[in-house]
Amino acid sequence: MYRDPVQSLEPLPSRNAAPHALRVGMIGIGTVGSGTFRVLARNQAEIAGRAGRPIEVVMVAARNLARAAAVVGGNVPLTHDPMRVATHPNVDVVVEVAGGTGPARDWVLAAIAHGKHVVTANKALLAVHGAEIFAAARQHGVAVAYEGAVAVSIPIVKALREGLTANRIEWVAGIINGTTNFILSKMRDEGLDFGAALAQAQALGYAEADPAFDVEGIDAGHKLTLLAANAFGTPVRFDDVQVEGITALQRLDVACAEQLGYRIKLLGVARRREEGVELRVQPALVPAAHLMAHVNGSMNGVMIKGDAAGVTMYYGAGAGSEQTASAVIADLVDVARLAGTSAAQRVPHLGFHAHAMNTLPVVSRADVCSCHYLRVPVHAASGIEAVAGWAAGRQLPVRQVTLAVGQAGSGPQVLVLTQPVRQAEMELALNALQAHPAVAGAITALRVEELA
Amino acid sequence: MYRDPVQSLEPLPSRNAAPHALRVGMIGIGTVGSGTFRVLARNQAEIAGRAGRPIEVVMVAARNLARAAAVVGGNVPLTHDPMRVATHPNVDVVVEVAGGTGPARDWVLAAIAHGKHVVTANKALLAVHGAEIFAAARQHGVAVAYEGAVAVSIPIVKALREGLTANRIEWVAGIINGTTNFILSKMRDEGLDFGAALAQAQALGYAEADPAFDVEGIDAGHKLTLLAANAFGTPVRFDDVQVEGITALQRLDVACAEQLGYRIKLLGVARRREEGVELRVQPALVPAAHLMAHVNGSMNGVMIKGDAAGVTMYYGAGAGSEQTASAVIADLVDVARLAGTSAAQRVPHLGFHAHAMNTLPVVSRADVCSCHYLRVPVHAASGIEAVAGWAAGRQLPVRQVTLAVGQAGSGPQVLVLTQPVRQAEMELALNALQAHPAVAGAITALRVEELA
Repeated sequence: MYRDPVQSLEPLPSRNAAPHALRVGMIGIGTVGSGTFRVLARNQAEIAGRAGRPIEVVMVAARNLARAAAVVGGNVPLTHDPMRVATHPNVDVVVEVAGGTGPARDWVLAAIAHGKHVVTANKALLAVHGAEIFAAARQHGVAVAYEGAVAVSIPIVKALREGLTANRIEWVAGIINGTTNFILSKMRDEGLDFGAALAQAQALGYAEADPAFDVEGIDAGHKLTLLAANAFGTPVRFDDVQVEGITALQRLDVACAEQLGYRIKLLGVARRREEGVELRVQPALVPAAHLMAHVNGSMNGVMIKGDAAGVTMYYGAGAGSEQTASAVIADLVDVARLAGTSAAQRVPHLGFHAHAMNTLPVVSRADVCSCHYLRVPVHAASGIEAVAGWAAGRQLPVRQVTLAVGQAGSGPQVLVLTQPVRQAEMELALNALQAHPAVAGAITALRVEELA
Repeated sequence: MYRDPVQSLEPLPSRNAAPHALRVGMIGIGTVGSGTFRVLARNQAEIAGRAGRPIEVVMVAARNLARAAAVVGGNVPLTHDPMRVATHPNVDVVVEVAGGTGPARDWVLAAIAHGKHVVTANKALLAVHGAEIFAAARQHGVAVAYEGAVAVSIPIVKALREGLTANRIEWVAGIINGTTNFILSKMRDEGLDFGAALAQAQALGYAEADPAFDVEGIDAGHKLTLLAANAFGTPVRFDDVQVEGITALQRLDVACAEQLGYRIKLLGVARRREEGVELRVQPALVPAAHLMAHVNGSMNGVMIKGDAAGVTMYYGAGAGSEQTASAVIADLVDVARLAGTSAAQRVPHLGFHAHAMNTLPVVSRADVCSCHYLRVPVHAASGIEAVAGWAAGRQLPVRQVTLAVGQAGSGPQVLVLTQPVRQAEMELALNALQAHPAVAGAITALRVEELA
């Protein structure tokens, strides 16, 4: 059924590939890996017709060899040891779809050091170790491709890195985590609270048993890091992203946002300002009539504003076996064209050549300036006057002050939409309002993104 | 102010370009050309940082040299003669943005014959002469790039040709003409008839004085030709596209579609069937909740269904000076990377290498099978029974038969939504219904596209 690693001592045999084939070594054959293998097999004629040469999997590293053999059949040598794939002389390109940031870093660096191109869908790896990995790849003259790391079915890295090269990118805003978008859609459509919507997401396989990575915004932060780097020519730096998840979001705010003509989405926003770039992942209100408000369920959507193209938008599945395979294989087709090319003939890893990269300062949270939504629980409807007075007294630029309607059982709520206000000023003002005797509970504040 | 063509006899001087610069010769400096020049100048540092080398316009051919000089300044040599740009030894790449299909074909073929890459936004040229032009480019080892020919601000050619290479494409459906989408949006939002909406489009510059090219669907047909070729690996063949415009569309149908939960869009559809491909441009009903129904005004949207990626969607401006420049310059950045590469290292013109191209049969109009919307004027509301009886009698698969509401002054109308029916059968059935004594006027039939 499969070659046992004990039987297949050095040298590990590789599958006999067609002449001129791009020889792929896979590390990981789980959901994404098996999808990649399946699509490569099913569409092999079409893919070779596009790539100009066959693309063949010549060996696979997997934890569970029996399960791996069930996917790839008996002709593909298997090993428990990813390092053997990463360093094997018969491998042209390593597909890393095992995930994680520790061992995966070692495998990827080993593959690069052995002169192999790397294709990965591992956003955490690149968001955290990208600078080191891309530098190593430059040094060894190989490519590290990662279309599958962001909004998998959508060729968004290619759009940003190659399609919009004429533009000075002003901002990128994305719904780039399907799990949280599914949960938010459920909260809105069915009036569920966060916990119940999460439970549904878990039951349907849209969320992991430990959902923290998704619902805390970390996964979206990883992806935003990669988008921002390609947008602005800055290095990847996940630590600089301001990340806020949706665990504290209340269904009352979903309903109140709706009343004001907005929907709440977990948005990753990278925006160029005079003083630097904003990098943040936050639940935010977007206009209900806006295309991004119609990105529902587990789908992803990314909007990019360039100074020449204007606003363009990209939509598709953000997860899934073959959806991710679509991105991984597109990268393989690109890699199939790289043989014999030099750095000048290739697309740089982060869109810009090294000399043109630019470590822009990141705007601190206190300095981020945006419109805000506030929900202020008050003791009585007349509390709206206190809130209006507070805004006037602090010269807070306000667009709308209104009472929530139809939220029986929650007590009266004053809703406020502000004009752009610096976060630091907003927080000072909110502290003052929170202490006002008309206020009956904790104020909720969320950002509003008009995406215009 | 500018070099007069009489003064600048052979050899036409070219602007001194930076070492290693990609030297661009432009043919045409109108709306698109001037936008290209402007964006190249404004974002030159960023563009060079991405391309790895400067991109410089070294000469320009224009009809009106004074106007051209006002755009490009005194340092760029000008000529009346596009052939001098197309064949000049100091030009690496020719940007053809003059338009038209006659002389433009000659200029492009001359540039190719002189070993120059070509970038063009001319969809008509490529839809009609693409086979000849791409063959010549292959023969001479140069690239012909045309991102600006379809949905300009959206890198849709790149998405389809490079981003979705893993996929067997099942269908592409696009709102790819901004003029007609503007008109249809006006008809819906303001209840205008076609003529009034067209007049508004003309007044605002969204439609030409002679709007036939747009409103008859020809422009969308040209673009669909290019999308279909890249989707299926078929040659470009505009003559095979079934083209229908929106000039006959009545506002009553826009309103009745709305009642049924649909909006009418001019859709270009390329769909793979067992028996071949459908290639058609038609006004069609799309579900109001669908993302494509929210592509409004002069914006474009393209949806692609691949077997691995599933449905992805792309949205952005479909016209405009700098919006088109965004695409033209992205092509120039790609071309900047081609120096010294071979065909195997490049993306094929239509996505597939020549040996993998495939002249699929085109499904005839009679054999196209789709859902239909019918509006049947009847003498009285009771006519609905006659229509229902007609459908039952002909075993026509019907989803819904209902009366139009709120269309005062138009007389009673029966609305029908069918399941998929072959066009030939539909027409036979419609002929029979048209002759029914309960029917009071001409029946309107439109396709329904669920885009699922």
